[in-house]
Amino acid sequence: MTDNSEIHTVDDCMKVSEVLARVGDKWSILVIAALGERPHRFNELKRVIVGVSQRMLTLTVRGLERDGFITRTVTPSIPPRVDYALTELGQSVLLPARAMGEWALENRATVDAARQAFDAALAGQNKI
Amino acid sequence: MTDNSEIHTVDDCMKVSEVLARVGDKWSILVIAALGERPHRFNELKRVIVGVSQRMLTLTVRGLERDGFITRTVTPSIPPRVDYALTELGQSVLLPARAMGEWALENRATVDAARQAFDAALAGQNKI
Repeated sequence: MTDNSEIHTVDDCMKVSEVLARVGDKWSILVIAALGERPHRFNELKRVIVGVSQRMLTLTVRGLERDGFITRTVTPSIPPRVDYALTELGQSVLLPARAMGEWALENRATVDAARQAFDAALAGQNKI
Repeated sequence: MTDNSEIHTVDDCMKVSEVLARVGDKWSILVIAALGERPHRFNELKRVIVGVSQRMLTLTVRGLERDGFITRTVTPSIPPRVDYALTELGQSVLLPARAMGEWALENRATVDAARQAFDAALAGQNKI
């Protein structure tokens, strides 16, 4: 990072930041992971992504569609059917997204313990 | 994701989401990448991470310290010197974080083009 700082333009850095904001977002990673298995309908996504609200999932799939990661296909049946699937770009981010997701799964207890220790130390300081 | 959904507890999923929220955050990834090179002082981080504000960097390093990714070492010189460095946990996230960062760097133009196409299509719809 420091070695290459001269060749980074501000514009480049801002764009990379924007892309990271999308693919690093926890709900985005979970949607991409689910669609990595197979296409899903909206309600299927809502079921497998524990804890996501209707509104947050709506915003997430819309953002992912806008950024070219997923397609949204409407079948005009009764009721209409909406399917989400990964694009080629979405497929290509699966590998780094999965690596990040697996790391998070493996290390969640360590992070949790670090947080509790930090908060306990802070509470101790505030008592003095 | 779908295949394993029965063995996921809600608590597990929430913790993984929290961890992803930290390591997926764009500023966190950029701080981790910089500290992956060598320890940095606060002002060095501010210089190499283009576009970050003083306040956002302060929040980011504090969050990373709380979650056990980085250490904060104060040397009581005049003026006091504060160094940030990766912990073992922070080192372990370098690989997935770098993979994600590199992906973002390689694909930023594709994402940018997708966004512009989406917005143009939306603007076209609204005119009708």
